[in-house]
Order: sequence, then C-alpha cells, then structure tokens
Amino acid sequence: MTTETEFDRALAMRWEEHAAVAVGSFELSEDWLIGGVVNGGLLMALCTQAAVERCGVAGHVHPVAWSSQFASAARPGRAEVRLTLTRAGRSFTSVSVDLLQGGEERLRTLVTLGRLDELGDTVYAAPPPPLMPPPDQCLRADRSVPSSREVVLLDRLDLRLDPATAMWAVGQPSKAGRMRGWLRFADNRPVDAGSLPFFLDAMPPVAFDVGGQGWAPTVAFLGSVRAEPQDGWLQMEITTSTVVGGLLEEDATIWDRSGRVVAHSRQIAGFRMSGGALP
Amino acid sequence: MTTETEFDRALAMRWEEHAAVAVGSFELSEDWLIGGVVNGGLLMALCTQAAVERCGVAGHVHPVAWSSQFASAARPGRAEVRLTLTRAGRSFTSVSVDLLQGGEERLRTLVTLGRLDELGDTVYAAPPPPLMPPPDQCLRADRSVPSSREVVLLDRLDLRLDPATAMWAVGQPSKAGRMRGWLRFADNRPVDAGSLPFFLDAMPPVAFDVGGQGWAPTVAFLGSVRAEPQDGWLQMEITTSTVVGGLLEEDATIWDRSGRVVAHSRQIAGFRMSGGALP
Repeated sequence: MTTETEFDRALAMRWEEHAAVAVGSFELSEDWLIGGVVNGGLLMALCTQAAVERCGVAGHVHPVAWSSQFASAARPGRAEVRLTLTRAGRSFTSVSVDLLQGGEERLRTLVTLGRLDELGDTVYAAPPPPLMPPPDQCLRADRSVPSSREVVLLDRLDLRLDPATAMWAVGQPSKAGRMRGWLRFADNRPVDAGSLPFFLDAMPPVAFDVGGQGWAPTVAFLGSVRAEPQDGWLQMEITTSTVVGGLLEEDATIWDRSGRVVAHSRQIAGFRMSGGALP
Repeated sequence: MTTETEFDRALAMRWEEHAAVAVGSFELSEDWLIGGVVNGGLLMALCTQAAVERCGVAGHVHPVAWSSQFASAARPGRAEVRLTLTRAGRSFTSVSVDLLQGGEERLRTLVTLGRLDELGDTVYAAPPPPLMPPPDQCLRADRSVPSSREVVLLDRLDLRLDPATAMWAVGQPSKAGRMRGWLRFADNRPVDAGSLPFFLDAMPPVAFDVGGQGWAPTVAFLGSVRAEPQDGWLQMEITTSTVVGGLLEEDATIWDRSGRVVAHSRQIAGFRMSGGALP
C-alpha cells in the first residue's frame, strides 16, 4: 500500500500487541470531516483495513461482510483500534474491531473476511447499473453552495450527481428517496476493494431527497464487498423506502466501470424532516 | 414475560454479574432446529432480548437496530451470552452481546436500543404490504415434504406461503428472487417487538427461489424494529437481487395486520446453486 494518496495517508496505522488483542493507533485528520465529525465511511475503511492487515489469514483479504454500530461521533485527533480475532475458519475469518478515542467508544465493527476468488464470480442475478448521464453531464458536488461548506469530505472526492436526482440541492426534493452519482478519489488514488467501505457512505444522505435536513447520523451499517472493482469511475445509487419517525434505512449499491456490482450496503440512520426537531 | 409459550421458554435465561459484563446462561433446545443447527433468528431474539432485559435503561426497550455476525453453528445444549454496555446515550443505548457454547463463539451481536414512541411514528414514506391471497388460500409450510423433514423450526410456526412464490417447492423456482408469506407462532404466542428479530429470519431462504439448495448459512445480518406490531398475522416479503459466486443478500420486510412496516433486515448469506458445490 502506498501512502502517497490522501486516502492511504488517512489509513496509516502503527501497531502494538497485547495478548489476543492487537492495538493500532493513528491520527484522524481534519481532511475527512462533515461538519466537524469524521465521516463514517472513512472509519469503516479504517476498521476493515485493520482487520485485513492484522487478521487476514489464509488469504482472507476481502471484507465480504461487515457491520458497524456507531456509538458516538469521532473527532480529529488521536484514535485507536482494538482487534480481536473471534474465529479463523476455512472460508471466513471473523474479527471484532473497536475504534476508540480517549477510551470512549466511537464505533464497533464486526468484520467477516473471505476470498472473493474462492467464493467464485458466477453471476446468477445482479441489478444492472442505473441509466444516468455520463460524468461530464452530471453535477459536481463541491463546497461552493452554503449547505455543503462544512463538508470537507467533498474535497477528497470527485462526486458527480445525476441532475435528475439532485433537485433537493435547490430545495425541490423528488420525494422518491433516490440518488445516483459517479464517484472517484479527487487525487486519482485507484479504486480497490479496500476503498469500497468508504465509498458506500460517501454520498450525501438519501434523506435529502425525501425532505430531510442535516447529514443524518448513521446508527448501524451492514456492508458487503462483492467483487474487486476495476479502477475508474464508480457508479452508485442510494435509495430509501421506509422513512418513519426519526429513522430511515438507506440502501446503497456500487458498480465499477465494467458494470459489475462490486459492493452494497444497508444503513439505519437518523432522520429529521426539514423544519422538524430531532427526536 | 410469560414462559408459557414455546418462544418465551426458548428465551428464558439465568443471570450472573462479572464487573462490567453480565453473563446469562440458558439451554438451547431441540425445538428450533434446522437440520441440527439452531435457527439464527432465535439466536438473534435471544441476544436482543438479553440486551433489553439487562441494559434497557432510560426506557430504551426496543432493538431499533442490531447487527449479528455468525461465526459458527449453534447446537442444542448449554449456551451463554456475555453482555457489555458500550454506550448509554440519551437517544440510544449500545450493547455488545457475544453468544458462546463451551467457550466457542457462535455469534456476536451489536444491539442499539431506543424507544420507538420517542422516535415518533409519522410515516413519511413506507412500502405498502404486498398483494397476496389471504392465509387460508396460501400453502401451509410444514414438515410433510421430504426437503423440510429436518426443519423442526416449522413446528413452531404457522407459516403460509403465497403459492405464486412457492413454486421452488415443486422444483420450479421463479428465478425472480422473491418469496411472500403470512407468519405467526404455532402456539398463538402474541407477536410483539421482541419476536420480530426471530421472524425476520424465519422464512425459507430466498435462495430457493433462484435455484439454490440447502438452508443457506447467514454470514452477517442487520435488522431493525420500526414499530410495535399489532398482534395477529404478520405479512412478510423477502427478496434478493445480487446472487454472485457463493454469496447473496436477502432483504426482508415485515408488516403487521394494520399494514404497517414493523421490521426489516438485510442479510449476507452463503449460496449454492442446486447441483453445485459450496465454495
């Protein structure tokens, strides 16, 4: 792994051993913030990569499934991950990763590592990539509009939103609960399996398209890397169907430039209707 | 909680305290087996209920989100859960629950408890219940057919499958990746929020409808209880869209008899095409 790109620098970690637990320490920079809080996708990429680095035995180098529970917001500064290997099986390796700051739990992640090549790549069923204009006919999401000034994360991304699903940005959410976009790293860092846990949570919240306000806090997340992506633009769609009270679910799917599904996820997140109060 | 029903007896637990960890021990009976292995939904109900019983502070009595990582198959016999409270917040309480047998990890579950009444019940968006024949015009799933003889779990359920989505049972999977049914407990135990983690994994695997064979092992699961159900028949739909190599995702939604979405989930599970080998 190179540390010459923004994303790889963000994942760099120093290791210590404590019996059955490996402890990695690192610095969370101010480069991946959304309104003062470190992006959850970056934290999940840190946790899954830590699991691969330390526990990826028997060639189990892909996070074929992981779930994260977000306990409190991570801030820039020193942080550590504590890894416990819970099971080393033939097909899968199970690792529990706690991410803490000052002893306080930020998120806990259960990572299941496997080998995509061993699992096979026969496609029995898969959704085709959504029809959308090419990147140069989409809207580049940057920090020029007032609502995204505090989203430093956008500087790390080249994110192009399908205009048909971006009317929320001008105060006209479609209410369909759907958003589509093209994504890659702003510094052209290659797209690989290890970056998919980050990309799955990199788009603006789908809540915006149903009239929600604020970058909704993730409560729980289940992600899965399904194929090693070809480098190039990623195509992503996020949807929600059940928005009730203060919670919604957000489903994400990512296709690589060959049109293959490479990752998908569901998250449960907070929801606040514009003008309404958080529960 | 009454212990007069099959489900409540299955959840009965004895508690001990060990500093910050609460340890509950119990017996897994032979009543909830699928081919010799204890049903994953029952294990998730045990873990979420244990979290509610021991850590449901501040009225946080609903598992608004939980994720489980399945490390190894649970068998009938003695088992224990180890609970760690990771965060007691204003809106949510975070609990980690390990379920072990003979010191070996079976599953690890991260439970986020909250209060549904505090989160509110305004419906901004929700999928309507699927159109399907009433229960008495559906197929009762029981153990009379050879393929389900080992599914003891079916004795605990009154499960009626929509015939349009049950052709896999006669060797003609629709390949649409969809199954619908009505569910309740066989002994008429009332349906409540605490039983939804069980029901979310109680239907036959959606893999059957895309030509898969065997009760596919769950790798990881994310569930969410979205409303306290009214007692009566539950209506459930499960779907899959990405079946690649040895894995698929299965999404489940449950509506109560009032037509309200009360729970939904996604799981990542193993997949084996009929006649094919497991990876």
